[in-house]
Amino acid sequence: MPFSFTVTHRAGKARAGILTTPRGVIHTPFFMPVGTAAAVKGLTPAQLSAIGAEIVLANTYHLSLRPGEKLVASAGGVADFMGWHRPTLTDSGGFQVFSLAKINRVAEDGVRFRSHIDGSPVFISPERSLEIQQALGADIMMAFDECPAGDSSRDVVAQSLRRTHRWAERSKIAWTNRERQALFGIVQGGIYEDLRRESAEFIAAQNFSGNAIGGVSVGEDPEKIAAIVAFTAPLLPENKPRYLMGVGRPLDIQRAVAAGVDMFDCVMPTRHARHAEVFTRQGTLKLRNLQYREDFAPIESDCECYACRTVSRAYLRHLFMAREILAPVYAATHNLYFYLRMMRELRQEIIAHSE
Amino acid sequence: MPFSFTVTHRAGKARAGILTTPRGVIHTPFFMPVGTAAAVKGLTPAQLSAIGAEIVLANTYHLSLRPGEKLVASAGGVADFMGWHRPTLTDSGGFQVFSLAKINRVAEDGVRFRSHIDGSPVFISPERSLEIQQALGADIMMAFDECPAGDSSRDVVAQSLRRTHRWAERSKIAWTNRERQALFGIVQGGIYEDLRRESAEFIAAQNFSGNAIGGVSVGEDPEKIAAIVAFTAPLLPENKPRYLMGVGRPLDIQRAVAAGVDMFDCVMPTRHARHAEVFTRQGTLKLRNLQYREDFAPIESDCECYACRTVSRAYLRHLFMAREILAPVYAATHNLYFYLRMMRELRQEIIAHSE
Repeated sequence: MPFSFTVTHRAGKARAGILTTPRGVIHTPFFMPVGTAAAVKGLTPAQLSAIGAEIVLANTYHLSLRPGEKLVASAGGVADFMGWHRPTLTDSGGFQVFSLAKINRVAEDGVRFRSHIDGSPVFISPERSLEIQQALGADIMMAFDECPAGDSSRDVVAQSLRRTHRWAERSKIAWTNRERQALFGIVQGGIYEDLRRESAEFIAAQNFSGNAIGGVSVGEDPEKIAAIVAFTAPLLPENKPRYLMGVGRPLDIQRAVAAGVDMFDCVMPTRHARHAEVFTRQGTLKLRNLQYREDFAPIESDCECYACRTVSRAYLRHLFMAREILAPVYAATHNLYFYLRMMRELRQEIIAHSE
Repeated sequence: MPFSFTVTHRAGKARAGILTTPRGVIHTPFFMPVGTAAAVKGLTPAQLSAIGAEIVLANTYHLSLRPGEKLVASAGGVADFMGWHRPTLTDSGGFQVFSLAKINRVAEDGVRFRSHIDGSPVFISPERSLEIQQALGADIMMAFDECPAGDSSRDVVAQSLRRTHRWAERSKIAWTNRERQALFGIVQGGIYEDLRRESAEFIAAQNFSGNAIGGVSVGEDPEKIAAIVAFTAPLLPENKPRYLMGVGRPLDIQRAVAAGVDMFDCVMPTRHARHAEVFTRQGTLKLRNLQYREDFAPIESDCECYACRTVSRAYLRHLFMAREILAPVYAATHNLYFYLRMMRELRQEIIAHSE
């Protein structure tokens, strides 16, 4: 299949490389803007390209409920449906099932839950997740995993981990469209190093197209995230892309890249944008604050993004106060540019310091 | 001042020309996208330029209440504040005072009302309107007028008309920034031909930079609008731009252009966009309708707008159902393109048929 990964430069544990997918080439390490319902909040494909995005993530759970994966398949898959036509990745739905839905029962065969949209009963399993993801047609799919709550005991995490492994095997069996879609496995194991090692070894042995570190969600202590990632990433195969799911803050990403992670996604840049919070190298700014009322500087004076080249903090504050939809559009433009610029700079640094 | 208008072509009563303003040249007849709070709903200046917009309208009433005209003046005026840097027009605030605010009292000196945002008391007069508009710094300003309700009796309209005329004289006196800003007068008179004639003659005699037809709002019978406009437009000076305020539907505009009107604005394309209604040459489509669920055609197959080149009706329906902010962005892109393409076609037709 037209899917390959080449590490071209190494600096310490950090890597820079090229990921080739059916819909295009992506330079690693990279960050994926999140387009939950096949739309990155407020941004068109042209705006995403201008920001430097090379791949977009869409959510299996959301798209299966609305508009339904069959409709997306009729449109030629999620990339064509949204007019993006370039690489996409779909998650497995697991994270949303466990975070958004009202769960009825988790059993060996799968998860029964109620839709967060209309309360209707839904069943999702490794086979069903792959069925949906193959209909959505993204270049990269994820194996269906169980996501135990962050405060779960070691026993709960261990049991959940083994189920995730059985589900990984079932996901692999259900993966029939191998010519056009890659499938990544997901390592779980919470904060327990021995479980992370057990999971990394099991998942690596499955020979997926790539390997992900799951269960390291935003909101945890950055030190804890860094420690888990630094421990787990080197356990994953050198010759395959490593994806840290749902992380995170700029510093989390910088540390994970240093530990050898290649791929990231996070709702933070777009979610913060909706809440008027924008990233700068000196930290975030809350644009609704009175201090920006007459601040005619751009968000960041050295930023080349369209928002910074076009409008001021004072104007953006005005847009947020007036609840104009252009406000989150500009803020998302800047925040995603900030993340993607950071990834390009990390890549350049790896290349510059490569051995 | 760097403001001039030249009629270059005539076909019947219709005219094509060039309007030169301090911030750029505009080809007439033209349509102004409405950027109420110094933002056209969801569209960046780059997107407006791509659509073919040459001028944007902003609302004096809204901007004076939030963020306040002094802040906008500090940013260099409304065009620079919004990062547009090209021609702008501000209305007088009259229409919004009479349609949005809770009026306390209309008197000879001006109007006392309560802000629709926070209920605070506000006073606006011809002098105050010009003070605000000169702070906002648009290339074209409008004289402050009274807008009587559409169902007013002839006596009420006549009295209101004469007050509007006195306010027009006061607006002209308050117009001090003549080097950088043009001022247009507004003809009122409701549906009464003799009052329209009286008003047109009075306003024409004031020698404003241009002349507008007010009090012809959307929602009235198209035949009535067409009749008032066909009667009033030819009464306005040939050598100055004629502006039909707040109108309207595509057919209303086509008829008004045929009657010799040069300038238009209307919230319809952006407001319809927010309500999932898009314009086509065959009429409007309500994109939330089930019939578009699996309709993978663009809004209009022969449309060159970014939305039609990028996404399908089915995708747009999905975005509206999922309440994605990209939905009104795409719909506004198409609707404004539809209007501006129509204006370009009308202009080409006038040139092609010019005598």
